[in-house]
Amino acid sequence: MRSRYTFAMSEFIPPGTRFVDLPSPFAMKRGGILHGGRMAYECWGKPDPDYGNVILILTGLSPDAHAASHAEHPDPGWWEPMLGPGKPIDTDRWFVVSVNTLGSCKGSSGPASNDPANGRPYRLDFPELSVEDCADAAAHVVRVLGIRRLACVIGNSMGGMVALALINRHPGIAHGLINISGAARALPFSIAIRSLQREAIRLDPHWNQGNYDQEHYPEAGMRMARKLGVITYRSALEWDGRFGRVKLDADRRIGTDPFALEFEVESYLEGHAQRFVRRFDPNCYLYLSRAMDWFDLGESCDGSTEQALSRVRIDRALAIGVHTDILFPLQQQEEIANGLLAGGADARLLPLPSPQGHDAFLVDIARFGPAVRGFLDSL
Amino acid sequence: MRSRYTFAMSEFIPPGTRFVDLPSPFAMKRGGILHGGRMAYECWGKPDPDYGNVILILTGLSPDAHAASHAEHPDPGWWEPMLGPGKPIDTDRWFVVSVNTLGSCKGSSGPASNDPANGRPYRLDFPELSVEDCADAAAHVVRVLGIRRLACVIGNSMGGMVALALINRHPGIAHGLINISGAARALPFSIAIRSLQREAIRLDPHWNQGNYDQEHYPEAGMRMARKLGVITYRSALEWDGRFGRVKLDADRRIGTDPFALEFEVESYLEGHAQRFVRRFDPNCYLYLSRAMDWFDLGESCDGSTEQALSRVRIDRALAIGVHTDILFPLQQQEEIANGLLAGGADARLLPLPSPQGHDAFLVDIARFGPAVRGFLDSL
Repeated sequence: MRSRYTFAMSEFIPPGTRFVDLPSPFAMKRGGILHGGRMAYECWGKPDPDYGNVILILTGLSPDAHAASHAEHPDPGWWEPMLGPGKPIDTDRWFVVSVNTLGSCKGSSGPASNDPANGRPYRLDFPELSVEDCADAAAHVVRVLGIRRLACVIGNSMGGMVALALINRHPGIAHGLINISGAARALPFSIAIRSLQREAIRLDPHWNQGNYDQEHYPEAGMRMARKLGVITYRSALEWDGRFGRVKLDADRRIGTDPFALEFEVESYLEGHAQRFVRRFDPNCYLYLSRAMDWFDLGESCDGSTEQALSRVRIDRALAIGVHTDILFPLQQQEEIANGLLAGGADARLLPLPSPQGHDAFLVDIARFGPAVRGFLDSL
Repeated sequence: MRSRYTFAMSEFIPPGTRFVDLPSPFAMKRGGILHGGRMAYECWGKPDPDYGNVILILTGLSPDAHAASHAEHPDPGWWEPMLGPGKPIDTDRWFVVSVNTLGSCKGSSGPASNDPANGRPYRLDFPELSVEDCADAAAHVVRVLGIRRLACVIGNSMGGMVALALINRHPGIAHGLINISGAARALPFSIAIRSLQREAIRLDPHWNQGNYDQEHYPEAGMRMARKLGVITYRSALEWDGRFGRVKLDADRRIGTDPFALEFEVESYLEGHAQRFVRRFDPNCYLYLSRAMDWFDLGESCDGSTEQALSRVRIDRALAIGVHTDILFPLQQQEEIANGLLAGGADARLLPLPSPQGHDAFLVDIARFGPAVRGFLDSL
């Protein structure tokens, strides 16, 4: 019999999701061992006979593997305008694989999955998760699918961190890299933001050291965490134009206390939060968020990010960043491009003037589409 | 007998604080009426016989009137390096008055004060507070002290908003204005941040619709609000250099759960929060925070901030801002300088390259000192 907790988790998994079993045991960077783990993925297009046309997509913290619609799951994906026949990531040419990150709750093993040892959700007994583990698990998917070498790996946000760990730990796994709004290490401003998001969840009495269920659920903590996330995913510039000082009509006011939400921007955040809080597992959120803080590619080179990047084996790389990104600021993509270039890669930085901040790659398709298409065409 | 609540509040008031009674009734902008209100202030230096050398300081959200040490209160104030004999705001020359803002808990009337009608703290029965009320109350202090015209008003952060409201509503009250990291209206990014801070306090069960006491106190909510504040008061650039990825020694780890604070930047935030949560009244925080969101100087001119600024009567003005400020971004000080200039004032913008963000005026005295001194010398 499934507990209420796991039943709810299984609802997070999109139809048409495929699975690959992880090696069991699967050794994790910080010393934990995962037994009976699995990875969820989706794919689009057709592989060439020699699997020379494969693109791997690594996601940010919260998305599932459903980047775009396909026959088994026709609903739009989170990168629908970017991925499909004739689109910038053209599935008439490329065989595209998107994995749900290890530690997530969208099909891959994570704190919300059942521990095969006792049939109950891991919760905080899931081993400590690092970005490097996410990379190793993705590399395993690549190998199991029979892919010798990826034509390109595309990593967005946290996926940009995972992509760097992947090519660092699995030399030669990819010919090209598109690193979008990623980073080679977490810096204190984003650590502070994520720490506060985790604190909001942990402070919620319903979090209960990870032992919540659907009835007693850390909804308030998740709402706070998500709102703070959305604030840092977008930009002041975008919001000045989009919301300005527009207030809600009286009949759209949310709440009745004297501090109830009053401005459009507050209602926008509330809407985002309400859509999120029951669609992502709080413990998984904590694990993935902490993994980002821990990430520092330089660890593999006595702390020098620059050196670590210069030792990474990749032939071609494009680091795309956005001027208005406060969470993964443009200097971090510049660091990636310069570091890879110093190591002999054909690497360059593409700074984009998108007003939408960190999330621009999800919405500013007019700029990101041609940039991604152009790089892929050149491979 | 004083309730525990008011006793605690009275501890917030610095020694040597002076008081001015507000007119009773005192009509407030949004329709409320305050009875038996008072304003707290401190002063330094000596007035000229004609009171021609008076400077008024208007503070940000949380400071008291104790901007600097003086005979009756020798402890350092929040702007100690800026204010005193021979300092940039030179009390050998200027008679300086600093008021605690209306709505605060540091001596002026606010939600933590006793309602004379029943002897109990107002809490949420305090009338709705606006920046304009803070300005009117400050103007009353100026009048009661016998000051016909201020040589200069200096407003920092929220005090910059109050300063604009003051000169707008009390034409001719000041010859000069130094507006530091202020704004003529609240924009959606800062509204979103403040809304989330208020939500953190309101979500804390101990807030209890404002009916907390010292034993049941919204400590967690205040801690979250303060941490988010500090994150937005400083800058990523400063923190990269100051904290980097330095971790706490094992014996300095705070908390025992697997998500306990681990990085120096987290410990820094925790320290700031712990010093703050019991030193500022949560209801006062909510009132002042909401007042900032409501502020829009353009309201007095059919919504045009530019026009409203151009109609303000001031002779000389200096708007100082900082490139790294994400809460009151430099464009907002540029808007102030340009608007006042358009109205015929001798106004200019001084952008400073301080790395410390919004709080730079408190710490980057090497840059702010000469800027403020230079303007005051020129008056």
